[in-house]
Amino acid sequence: MHVLQSPPDAVVTIDGREYLYFVGTGYLGLQCHPEVIKAACRATERYGIHSATTRAGFGNSPPVLEAERRAAELFDVPAAFYFATGYAGNAILLAALQDRFDVLLADELSHYSVLEAARQTRLPLFTFHHRDADDLAAALKKNLGPGRRPLLLTDGVFSVRGTIAPLTEYRAVLNGYPGAGMLIDDAHAVGVLGRHGRGTLEHFGLFDSTMWHNRPRLCSSEFTAEGGCATFLTATASKAIGGFGGIIPGSLDFIERVKRSSHWFDGASAPVAAAAAATAKAIELLMADPDRRTRLRSNVRKFKDGLRGLGLEVDDSPVPILCLVLGDAENMRRIQTELMQRGIAVAYLPAYSGLGTEGGLRIAIFATHTEAMIERLINELRRLV
Amino acid sequence: MHVLQSPPDAVVTIDGREYLYFVGTGYLGLQCHPEVIKAACRATERYGIHSATTRAGFGNSPPVLEAERRAAELFDVPAAFYFATGYAGNAILLAALQDRFDVLLADELSHYSVLEAARQTRLPLFTFHHRDADDLAAALKKNLGPGRRPLLLTDGVFSVRGTIAPLTEYRAVLNGYPGAGMLIDDAHAVGVLGRHGRGTLEHFGLFDSTMWHNRPRLCSSEFTAEGGCATFLTATASKAIGGFGGIIPGSLDFIERVKRSSHWFDGASAPVAAAAAATAKAIELLMADPDRRTRLRSNVRKFKDGLRGLGLEVDDSPVPILCLVLGDAENMRRIQTELMQRGIAVAYLPAYSGLGTEGGLRIAIFATHTEAMIERLINELRRLV
Repeated sequence: MHVLQSPPDAVVTIDGREYLYFVGTGYLGLQCHPEVIKAACRATERYGIHSATTRAGFGNSPPVLEAERRAAELFDVPAAFYFATGYAGNAILLAALQDRFDVLLADELSHYSVLEAARQTRLPLFTFHHRDADDLAAALKKNLGPGRRPLLLTDGVFSVRGTIAPLTEYRAVLNGYPGAGMLIDDAHAVGVLGRHGRGTLEHFGLFDSTMWHNRPRLCSSEFTAEGGCATFLTATASKAIGGFGGIIPGSLDFIERVKRSSHWFDGASAPVAAAAAATAKAIELLMADPDRRTRLRSNVRKFKDGLRGLGLEVDDSPVPILCLVLGDAENMRRIQTELMQRGIAVAYLPAYSGLGTEGGLRIAIFATHTEAMIERLINELRRLV
Repeated sequence: MHVLQSPPDAVVTIDGREYLYFVGTGYLGLQCHPEVIKAACRATERYGIHSATTRAGFGNSPPVLEAERRAAELFDVPAAFYFATGYAGNAILLAALQDRFDVLLADELSHYSVLEAARQTRLPLFTFHHRDADDLAAALKKNLGPGRRPLLLTDGVFSVRGTIAPLTEYRAVLNGYPGAGMLIDDAHAVGVLGRHGRGTLEHFGLFDSTMWHNRPRLCSSEFTAEGGCATFLTATASKAIGGFGGIIPGSLDFIERVKRSSHWFDGASAPVAAAAAATAKAIELLMADPDRRTRLRSNVRKFKDGLRGLGLEVDDSPVPILCLVLGDAENMRRIQTELMQRGIAVAYLPAYSGLGTEGGLRIAIFATHTEAMIERLINELRRLV
């Protein structure tokens, strides 16, 4: 077992030794930003560890409300629900949606938390091939009875492969079905993709915040009749944003409904003050400094160019996750071990949703990596690949 | 909506005004202990908000490991799993148990998180009357086929009513069924009940840590054959302990199995450093100063004696949760409002698992309440009831 003895940044301490670090989800380097740390500590000193009661009673503390206010600002929508952990987001959202849809269709490689949440609804669940709009169309034809309303489930960006869901194509398919909806777990895209960091929808030019402002009854048939497929988002503060906890953005009415549809609002302790304050401050920083995202994109481009220079085929998306499958498991373990010996940490994942039996090397690029750091990784890979 | 603008302590600030506070779950006053706050801030400064990756890779930080070490110490067992939120504990534990049992039997008033987790397993679920061992026996007779292994699910202490599950009677019933088990959600008892604060099992003299030390294959049929009903616990750091996050204690083998049975270990961000460090420090304080629990018990006794003086019937358990049902909803709302006007906060819950349609007043006693504070509440109640 490795122990990370420092914050997750471009350079870290693992097991007592310093490493260049290309692991995890701290894409913008905000988990250890001095202002984020300060906000977390100040909130802890002022409000204690947490409010020790549910939010239905006296459990609303200023940092938790501020996290929700900032999250709504980030998405330019009227409201957001902020809760203790992003992992629960899809289950919380589906609890609010399950009586508005009849059939679930999920990308087969969706994140564990998506597929688990889908199974918990007891709605029939069908999967379609990874990122395959044609297979989605076929699955709809095959499994959807007349008048039944389908809800598509997918990651926006897939956490290990770094692929992007083809939302434009999905939407075109779904527009043929009255009452259809699309739920995007955008954990790895929010803060990273889109001009304002609003994620995969914004990346494809599909993010229209008026859909949440002007249509309070977002998941009603009225909306889907006039405006096509209804859209739902789960996000997390724990990845690019640099805080911690789950986020669901939406209209005032819809968020009120989400809070009442499960018991994370009225039957669980309110989130940790430090996490909420960190989340609020990190969103503020992220919105105030879009250059952070520009630097990240430039680093991703640099790294992908470098990989191409090694003869590897790489897409040109701005996603900061690269998954390299280089020969068999043994070869990848060797590369990972040798990189560690040379002071560079990348992850070798022997098994994860979306990987073959040989596994893969997952490399994460941060806004805080310097040009020299990225060159060093490329040079080491050149020797090892 | 009320906003709690201070830590949850005997005296708080709500909406800009000071109140004597008898709400929530900060039974021992540790959520705002200076050493707990200091530990949370120091960990945040040293490790950032969190490790920004899963624990299967590089996500193990010293505070998270320390929280697990301290949690194991509290229960005097070899290991514990510590995760972001106690609300998920029953689902995490049931994921590890669902193939060892055939039928679930739950107290009908178990916490939302218990019943939701039970429904997610897809094992058949039956409920029995609240705290009724005879009805449990009848439900087993009626619903359990030959050779089927039942798992009982219950809160140890019920969060709003403050009642205690009759574990001794349950165990006697279950011992008649080979392969039977008992899962206790002990969120409101750990830190409060039992000589060492190990909760409801210890309260009844049923806590035997050797059951976790000497029998690594805790949930195997070997164990249940020789030792009677297997026992499983979920706990939380968010209530009496004064930290935040879920805890499952057990043997090394069993905890390893729990970590691998769901994806909270390998598919979710590791917990917040501040929460983990607070949890570790709060457990240390709780273990070092059993007087905190003694003071709490003495306060509970004092308050219950006072209620008896008002002619109310009250049990004499050491549980620091009192649920008063005084007339109809309107009357209880009036009492709650008038107490607030006089600077005392108690909760009126219009609806919650285990309450009738009229709801109830929930009053929480803390170790940090002074004798004068408790007397003041009794005196105000005397005028209002």
